[in-house]
Amino acid sequence: MPNHVDAFTPRIGRIPIRDLSPAQPENLWPAKAYAGEVVPFGATVFKEGHDIIGVDVILTDPEGRESRHPMRPVGTGLDRWGAEAQLGTAGMWSYRVRAYLDDWATWLHNAEIKIPAGVDVALMLTMGTDLLGRATAGGPAPRVLTDAAATISDTSLDPLDRFAPALDPAVSAAIAERPLASLPSESGARPIRVERARAGTGNWYEFFPRSEGAKRRKDGSWASGTFRTAAKRLPAIAAMGFDVVYIPPIHPIGTTNRKGPNNTLVAGPGDPGSPYGIGSADGGHDSIHPELGTAKDLQFFLRACKQNGLELALDIALQASPDHPWVTEHPEFFTTLPDGSIAFAENPPKKYQDIYPLDFDNDPEGIYREMLRVFRVWLGHGIRIFRVDNPHTKPLWFWERLIAEILAEEPDTIFLSEAFTRPPMMRSLAQVGFQQSYTYFTWRNGKTELEEYLVELSHETSDYLRPNLFVNTHDILPPYLQFGGPAAYRIRAAIAATAGPTWGVYSGYELVENVARPGSEENIDNEKYEFKPRDWAAAEEEGRSLAPYLTRLNEIRAAHPALRQLRNLHTHWADDDHTLVFSKHLAAEFTADGVEDGVIVVANLDPHAVRESIVYLDPTRFGIDPTQPYDVTDLLSGERYTWGLDNFVRLDPFSQPVHVLRVEYPKGDS
Amino acid sequence: MPNHVDAFTPRIGRIPIRDLSPAQPENLWPAKAYAGEVVPFGATVFKEGHDIIGVDVILTDPEGRESRHPMRPVGTGLDRWGAEAQLGTAGMWSYRVRAYLDDWATWLHNAEIKIPAGVDVALMLTMGTDLLGRATAGGPAPRVLTDAAATISDTSLDPLDRFAPALDPAVSAAIAERPLASLPSESGARPIRVERARAGTGNWYEFFPRSEGAKRRKDGSWASGTFRTAAKRLPAIAAMGFDVVYIPPIHPIGTTNRKGPNNTLVAGPGDPGSPYGIGSADGGHDSIHPELGTAKDLQFFLRACKQNGLELALDIALQASPDHPWVTEHPEFFTTLPDGSIAFAENPPKKYQDIYPLDFDNDPEGIYREMLRVFRVWLGHGIRIFRVDNPHTKPLWFWERLIAEILAEEPDTIFLSEAFTRPPMMRSLAQVGFQQSYTYFTWRNGKTELEEYLVELSHETSDYLRPNLFVNTHDILPPYLQFGGPAAYRIRAAIAATAGPTWGVYSGYELVENVARPGSEENIDNEKYEFKPRDWAAAEEEGRSLAPYLTRLNEIRAAHPALRQLRNLHTHWADDDHTLVFSKHLAAEFTADGVEDGVIVVANLDPHAVRESIVYLDPTRFGIDPTQPYDVTDLLSGERYTWGLDNFVRLDPFSQPVHVLRVEYPKGDS
Repeated sequence: MPNHVDAFTPRIGRIPIRDLSPAQPENLWPAKAYAGEVVPFGATVFKEGHDIIGVDVILTDPEGRESRHPMRPVGTGLDRWGAEAQLGTAGMWSYRVRAYLDDWATWLHNAEIKIPAGVDVALMLTMGTDLLGRATAGGPAPRVLTDAAATISDTSLDPLDRFAPALDPAVSAAIAERPLASLPSESGARPIRVERARAGTGNWYEFFPRSEGAKRRKDGSWASGTFRTAAKRLPAIAAMGFDVVYIPPIHPIGTTNRKGPNNTLVAGPGDPGSPYGIGSADGGHDSIHPELGTAKDLQFFLRACKQNGLELALDIALQASPDHPWVTEHPEFFTTLPDGSIAFAENPPKKYQDIYPLDFDNDPEGIYREMLRVFRVWLGHGIRIFRVDNPHTKPLWFWERLIAEILAEEPDTIFLSEAFTRPPMMRSLAQVGFQQSYTYFTWRNGKTELEEYLVELSHETSDYLRPNLFVNTHDILPPYLQFGGPAAYRIRAAIAATAGPTWGVYSGYELVENVARPGSEENIDNEKYEFKPRDWAAAEEEGRSLAPYLTRLNEIRAAHPALRQLRNLHTHWADDDHTLVFSKHLAAEFTADGVEDGVIVVANLDPHAVRESIVYLDPTRFGIDPTQPYDVTDLLSGERYTWGLDNFVRLDPFSQPVHVLRVEYPKGDS
Repeated sequence: MPNHVDAFTPRIGRIPIRDLSPAQPENLWPAKAYAGEVVPFGATVFKEGHDIIGVDVILTDPEGRESRHPMRPVGTGLDRWGAEAQLGTAGMWSYRVRAYLDDWATWLHNAEIKIPAGVDVALMLTMGTDLLGRATAGGPAPRVLTDAAATISDTSLDPLDRFAPALDPAVSAAIAERPLASLPSESGARPIRVERARAGTGNWYEFFPRSEGAKRRKDGSWASGTFRTAAKRLPAIAAMGFDVVYIPPIHPIGTTNRKGPNNTLVAGPGDPGSPYGIGSADGGHDSIHPELGTAKDLQFFLRACKQNGLELALDIALQASPDHPWVTEHPEFFTTLPDGSIAFAENPPKKYQDIYPLDFDNDPEGIYREMLRVFRVWLGHGIRIFRVDNPHTKPLWFWERLIAEILAEEPDTIFLSEAFTRPPMMRSLAQVGFQQSYTYFTWRNGKTELEEYLVELSHETSDYLRPNLFVNTHDILPPYLQFGGPAAYRIRAAIAATAGPTWGVYSGYELVENVARPGSEENIDNEKYEFKPRDWAAAEEEGRSLAPYLTRLNEIRAAHPALRQLRNLHTHWADDDHTLVFSKHLAAEFTADGVEDGVIVVANLDPHAVRESIVYLDPTRFGIDPTQPYDVTDLLSGERYTWGLDNFVRLDPFSQPVHVLRVEYPKGDS
């Protein structure tokens, strides 16, 4: 029978320790965190019988230093234990969970019942004497313990007097520092890959360098913007509080079947083409479009970014125009059809005749090596953030291998996954290594779907997927923004900037560019196909720019470390079905200045009407005693309120659609 | 940096295959099934791009024979695939999931769009010719394929005529038998421990042998029933359709601090004591209580069981009375206190002075060996089912090791876990090896809690935990039975007998023994502490016995294989909040006689009032075309109805509280 057991290897310890978290589904890859992230650790730990157990999580940092974090029971009746810890530095951490029979707590629990009841008094005091003897043996012990040991062992005293010091919380606290433990049990060690802070938190701004400084000549043709003209826009971006600029692909653009304005099939002679139609006689993915400049100009641009406190994110789109050098040099990278032609991208009966998709199955090793080379070219330029276009149209193994190999060389590299597809692929891309992911956020506009999605992002997938909450992109202008007016733009920006530690906008958001190409969910005159210089100064002068609002949101993010955490979001109840309420909180022990930080966001999701609601808060979620009133200050309006459990809120989309409230803690102020 | 990757080992295949089921949480132990069980297999499988994929589950039986079961998409948008398969024989099975690019389906999907639209017609026909060439190459191919291959390659024909045979479903069906596959990808193999059918399905009856044939003497003292007198009860038990008899511990009972009637602290001279107070001068866990008989008498009883088609389940309670031989021979099995005494069981300030609990940490190896020896003694008597008392008060590793070692010797052994505690321990006991588990069923009496719990048992924990739905035990008489009258007894029996593949009753249920010891949830005059002979014949004559009702339920179970499956339960909607509706269904391919089987249960949970309701059925859950009416026959009343999607139901607890409806399939009758 195959039931035969050759040698018994128990898979469970003396005290069972199960279902550790953080963890990736199936534990195929390490759980992820970013430097400075506060991570909730969890385990299901239980022991037969009535003994009291203790549970610790032991953290090992990248230098091998261990720290012990006592876990506390979470909820009731499910034997779940939890502790929070902040992972301060990037590198490979690990953790394990240790459980033990808590001899002191077990004895104390029994003694507290039996000694006053006169049951087994002498026996219990003998046992207590033994325990305090253990607690004070082997080295100097705190006075409170040596005193207690002396008293409990003094048989000349009355039993209740002998027992009294054992009830002193200071005695239990001193023992908890080095617990009196039996039956020690440990889980295996689990890895956590901690990446640099920027992998988890940042304020992104997308723009097209060719549009900044682009000029129409007298003959109607265009002079492209360049890295040098685009660099002039950087101070304004930095002034709004953004810290990452993301730019679309910078490579030469093909001319064969080039797309014209508004995605038309035929480009005019002056149309610049889509930067995603990559490759021409001027070069491919390792080259720079001559109209943007040279490698030197790129270096100028990168220096300008740095001077403005900005990091550059480069778009990498692994596809080729028919003019790409790969087409002749590496035809094996593409699918050759039985008639000898190379297969275009298609979604039958539609064909995309400006693009050849790569075929990763013809020569997997060859194509892998070439793509690795491409990334190394840009790493060589000093770029460390890549926004990857449509990674879900390439095999998952390719990303797993590529990201692992690049991280081994350049651990600070960050890959942002631009995948909009079904959950298994989106999640798996994050699991195999992408540091950040675009999300469904742009399409979650109702209250319930937003609540569920924000909870999913901050709690259910947060061990591996870090959302980058873009409010729009050059490809995404959802109906909510098309039809909600400036209020919609304010509402969405406020939610994105406060709900997630990383958020982003695509240029033009400040100008409320909300006209779509009819029937589509992208801007009319999409910048992908034409130059689009904008008059930022005029908009600000005319008071129709949202730049001051975005600036204020980024100031609030900078001042509030709770907003730069992923896993600390909690939703609260509001009667009105268009009023969204959530809070974020960071305990004082986890902030740089040791000051507790809490923010409550109340957003009217209806951009067309005033909404009034009672909001019902659970103040324990942001560290406030629920029996006491507390003050909150609106960081957008400056108004101050005294709040409690139930609070009336009125939000007018035309003046103040969102409260972003700082919690005023009794002993300090963030 | 610890990020360094020495050698890249991808953890995911060319086509990702994730989250296989069945599986145990954390995959620490093999998933479980029982012989004849229909198991749903699942996997999340997805590929980048628009190609169509195929997914199979490959089963390997204990003899190493493989079978392929094509999986189908389950639900929408989550890339989940599923297939059902019946595991016919006990032993260690395994399964793996295979995915591939389905070249035929991918081509056909594109060709169906492009050829009629006149796009790439020649190219698509060339590709189709190649594919049908592959399908007919290498051995004899079905005529339908060779014909199609000849037609599509005949360039003298009109393109649409060449293409026509490819659209014939018979062609696709023939190709599906041996798919045209690229990029084959496979998961690792996962084990499934398949245990004998009785591990998963059975009708249990608990009784106390000492009560059957017990007689009060003229002096008021009692003569105990024996194995031989108890054997006389077996034909009646078998006649009711039960197939397992479970009896409490049969060992000698201690006298020190023996409990008297109704759990009183002092036993009278004639009180027999609790069979759970194990051990006396007559012996311990390896001995038989002299009043029950000898080893020979036990053999007589076992033979009588067999002759009546019954299997015996013996109760093993690992605890000792102060008179147990272990106390002197193996004091190391117990906890010795600092004052030299042995620790009683206690829940401070209460002490249970008739019981010494075992201490598994003093001499773990010694105690393990002795307990193993005890089980082997009873295995030696031919007993193969053990009902284990309070396993959750012993360490989990002990059961993991013991069950593994015993199964290696006697793979047919079945352990039933009598654990009523928090979910992690109850589930872990099942995970480490217990074949069956008592459940919270007795305390789930409301509609919502029953629906949720039955779904949990049949779908969420069914990969490892098999419920034994006892309606009562000698320790459990819940308020619902205390106060619901005979209707409550009928309702609960009908639900237990139809919702789970294993159910059980404790003797006296037939007699509606529903008087509790005041303030408790157990019967007054609990049989645990006294002899309790019952006059079965009088009850039947007087028409107050439920035996005919229980008999009918077991007849229905015998006739309906759908009721002997665990994972096929689905709940349906009813307006009334006391009307519970569920169905169980087994496809014809999985029944012994090849006849489809479906049962719908509609239960009025209110034992005090008539309930009327519309019930809304999803007939696809029991294999019925939802657009057609169908007939159902009540197997309890014989009434026949024509039903559809929405049906009116009236259930009177005093006459007919439950419908157990056989679905009448158009082509046959179960």
